[in-house]
Amino acid sequence: MSSQEAAYIDICRRKQAAQQALIPASWRLKSLPDESVTDVRGIPRACGILSDREIEITETFDAVELAEKIRRRTYSCYEVALAFCKRAAIAQQLLNCLTEIFFEAGLERARQLDKHLADHGLPIGPLHGVPVSIKDDKAIVGYDTSCGLASLCFKPARDNSAIVRILQDAGAVLYCKTNIPQTMMAFDSVNNIWGRTLNPLNRKLTPGGSSGGESALVAIRGSLLGIGSDVGGSIRVPAMCTGTYGIKPTSVRLTSNVGPGGFGTPGSFAVGVAVSHGPIATSLRSCELFLKVVADAKLWETENYTVFSPWRTIDAKPRQMRFLVLPTDGAMTPLPPVQRLLKETAAQLQSRGHKVDVLENPPAFLKDNFKHYRMMMGGAGGSGHLVDLIESTGEPMIKPIVGKVRRQNPITVDQLFERNAVRDTFLANSLKLWKPATGQDYDAIVTAVAAHPALRHDTWEYSGYTSMFNVLDWPAGVLPARNVTREDLEAPISEGTGSVWDRVNRKNIWENNEDYLGTPLALQVVARKLQEEELLQAMHVVDEAISETRGASIRDHKL
Amino acid sequence: MSSQEAAYIDICRRKQAAQQALIPASWRLKSLPDESVTDVRGIPRACGILSDREIEITETFDAVELAEKIRRRTYSCYEVALAFCKRAAIAQQLLNCLTEIFFEAGLERARQLDKHLADHGLPIGPLHGVPVSIKDDKAIVGYDTSCGLASLCFKPARDNSAIVRILQDAGAVLYCKTNIPQTMMAFDSVNNIWGRTLNPLNRKLTPGGSSGGESALVAIRGSLLGIGSDVGGSIRVPAMCTGTYGIKPTSVRLTSNVGPGGFGTPGSFAVGVAVSHGPIATSLRSCELFLKVVADAKLWETENYTVFSPWRTIDAKPRQMRFLVLPTDGAMTPLPPVQRLLKETAAQLQSRGHKVDVLENPPAFLKDNFKHYRMMMGGAGGSGHLVDLIESTGEPMIKPIVGKVRRQNPITVDQLFERNAVRDTFLANSLKLWKPATGQDYDAIVTAVAAHPALRHDTWEYSGYTSMFNVLDWPAGVLPARNVTREDLEAPISEGTGSVWDRVNRKNIWENNEDYLGTPLALQVVARKLQEEELLQAMHVVDEAISETRGASIRDHKL
Repeated sequence: MSSQEAAYIDICRRKQAAQQALIPASWRLKSLPDESVTDVRGIPRACGILSDREIEITETFDAVELAEKIRRRTYSCYEVALAFCKRAAIAQQLLNCLTEIFFEAGLERARQLDKHLADHGLPIGPLHGVPVSIKDDKAIVGYDTSCGLASLCFKPARDNSAIVRILQDAGAVLYCKTNIPQTMMAFDSVNNIWGRTLNPLNRKLTPGGSSGGESALVAIRGSLLGIGSDVGGSIRVPAMCTGTYGIKPTSVRLTSNVGPGGFGTPGSFAVGVAVSHGPIATSLRSCELFLKVVADAKLWETENYTVFSPWRTIDAKPRQMRFLVLPTDGAMTPLPPVQRLLKETAAQLQSRGHKVDVLENPPAFLKDNFKHYRMMMGGAGGSGHLVDLIESTGEPMIKPIVGKVRRQNPITVDQLFERNAVRDTFLANSLKLWKPATGQDYDAIVTAVAAHPALRHDTWEYSGYTSMFNVLDWPAGVLPARNVTREDLEAPISEGTGSVWDRVNRKNIWENNEDYLGTPLALQVVARKLQEEELLQAMHVVDEAISETRGASIRDHKL
Repeated sequence: MSSQEAAYIDICRRKQAAQQALIPASWRLKSLPDESVTDVRGIPRACGILSDREIEITETFDAVELAEKIRRRTYSCYEVALAFCKRAAIAQQLLNCLTEIFFEAGLERARQLDKHLADHGLPIGPLHGVPVSIKDDKAIVGYDTSCGLASLCFKPARDNSAIVRILQDAGAVLYCKTNIPQTMMAFDSVNNIWGRTLNPLNRKLTPGGSSGGESALVAIRGSLLGIGSDVGGSIRVPAMCTGTYGIKPTSVRLTSNVGPGGFGTPGSFAVGVAVSHGPIATSLRSCELFLKVVADAKLWETENYTVFSPWRTIDAKPRQMRFLVLPTDGAMTPLPPVQRLLKETAAQLQSRGHKVDVLENPPAFLKDNFKHYRMMMGGAGGSGHLVDLIESTGEPMIKPIVGKVRRQNPITVDQLFERNAVRDTFLANSLKLWKPATGQDYDAIVTAVAAHPALRHDTWEYSGYTSMFNVLDWPAGVLPARNVTREDLEAPISEGTGSVWDRVNRKNIWENNEDYLGTPLALQVVARKLQEEELLQAMHVVDEAISETRGASIRDHKL
């Protein structure tokens, strides 16, 4: 190391070398696919590293079925863990989706779980033996929580985040952490330590961010259930980009007193916009299982910010539901594929007997949602702290955060109140969306995840459709719909809103739209605050309604 | 008015004159009792203004029974409203407990409710015809929400606070608002507009504050159910001082987008310490009825900060409960009456088969609770705004707030985070109180409301025993225990903590303790956040356990 070399270079080199050493030689691909191969989802099956039984284990089930197979001893915890460690190792070589790797610890844990099942005949919890991948921002004792920052490397956590404790208590096998963007404040998952995560459906596209390592790993079935986090869309955008299921719960339903050490500012929770932790999975019911496990853990007994909210059992699939379809946020008009999808979905729900109102002209207050989000994020402080962390090792900023993560003068509490008051008015107005002119309240809102399809790397800027529901702190889930078709590309583009974001969307993003052919589209479903049960109910109904038209490559969670 | 006279003088004079004019001549006491008469609770019955039936209506029932009598048409809404308007008018002459008076509107409303019951045979809600008094800080269309500040007079509210809407929808009759201290930040209820509220049990004592008008009115049965608010003890201290029941719910179970206009700072809710709105009543089940009515109103559908929390039906009186008795907060050692009461209560609960652990040596972190409270109140900003409101009409500050309500430099958000982090550590430590060394978690905490009995006017300073549960935002209720006895006064005083607060308590407050003989003592029961249902369950158990030793003057809600 030359004396001129910035400190981060050596740190990153050592982290990469340590990571490399954790992938056994026999799990290494003989050759990497040519750059022209964009969809790499078939490679784990074809590469010869996995046995037929390991292909069966990793490709046949969702987390719910796999847990059941383990309980019935169709598969041992150990062979399941081994299969997923191997597949995650393959995924890493194709997609660069992992950060901390602890396959050995996972396998050892699986052995203990097998012993427990043999000794006691009963699983230790509902996730007994199920491998669960974890976004890098969760603290796991003994491993770094670097969040894409070189300065936080080689500082292993001394406490577990609450979600890690819950998963362990429920019997899950933890085996790896997944990649994120530097500072986690971007919709691409790229940093100087681990590099860039690619999208297994199309490596030319972002897997989304900040939970992009998670979504990429789940989409290639290196994991059936992973845990992400979301402050502006960081679970939902990755789920959309990779055709997976993702849920951002209400922030206060799952919080942890132990966060990423040195990253966040102590005492800042819920000032500005609160982070939500939630699942990305290959099926909706896996997300549901996760949320129920969380509720049953009674986190409010130990974690300062978790709100008392025992799981409520409600009617799984009611005969008739009331949906409000939000075709635009008024700031960025969706491009034709998204517009057409929402129209189709409204028709599909109606044809199944559900009541659907389409809010063609949303109230004027809604168009400022992204302004409010940026204002509230600015009010949360801490950006200067992130700049310090970046500069302390001389690392360059990744492209998506340049100009966004920057030092700002700390605002006063009085200024915070002014911003809160603006947000409060937005919230009060938004609550009225649930009330139709006549009749009962809506059960759920259906809208886009973004005004455009999944994007090429480093081009995602606007997050209004997702971040709106962080400002409101309403639970929101994403489910895969269909792929972009030729008709979508050729459909006429409707009138824009004239906003600067809208102009970027219509020009930079929709030009050369050929790239989007065959890429996944997704729907967002939203419920009222702390009503995850109602959200799941609505998502099941929408999931079923669109199942027939879902594209073949997405329709089935089997590859 | 001379040109030198401060503006507030004329404002207060006009408010007082307007109030005076709203008490009919026939409802006026022929003479006021001599100053030597300290307990004035018998005067409404004896003064000749109320008919026998009106005495029966106001002295026989609690709010639950009265609602039942009205539903069964034993009494009309009108005669009930008239009886309580008259009794409130008498209370006002004895105790100075009211602010805005709207007897006429209440009587007109009662007539409509009678017509509704005659026409439809069904009540409009569970409080059909029940008179409910309202603390001055709630906005009611057409009336001032002056909060003891001259500068907020003659500015009638244009919207109702959420709780007012709920009560109206539930069929309640609103007829008056009740007195508070200037700025509401004191445990005495005195201001320049309305003067000082007295305690009907003993006019030499404070009725408590800031909901002291409410507690005084309820204790003399000018109301059976009133709605107060509590940021540091403002429901619980008045309930203790007057031998009434009071509950401070979790703040986010009852919030309102419409607050006292011009008083609070928009956007400041839940920064610092959040306000809780709750009942003061003559019986525990009246408090329970109120809380259930609130939950059933689904305020989370309209109010930004109310958390989704439908009412949960739980076992009313379980066979065995687990109590943690907290005999001291470690900062101010309770004086003998309070210490003896807690010891007796522990024994009474144990003798009924409940498990009771007494935390004789509370963990060290607890003693800083009042420091944390004051720090968080300082972080909430807004004091400068209150000083502006006071100064704008030239009114003097009341004694209890001098030196406390003052201009402070606005803190930055980074400083807010530092304070929040201190608070967060306190909260995380406090959560551990619920976990005994072995066995199941405690169901409730039983502790004092204050380290001393009800105090003389303008002497109450320390609020640790109550404000602790505002910082933690845990629901807490107060129930009347027994009166101070001769044995209490003569019992040896135990060792102090050495804190400055403790020294004041032992010297200034316990000297001349003869004044406390026969004054009411109370217990505080605490549950986990958002578990008002569990709080009520525990309060019912404690209420029953101590019922035999409760002093005769308090035992019965009948006077």
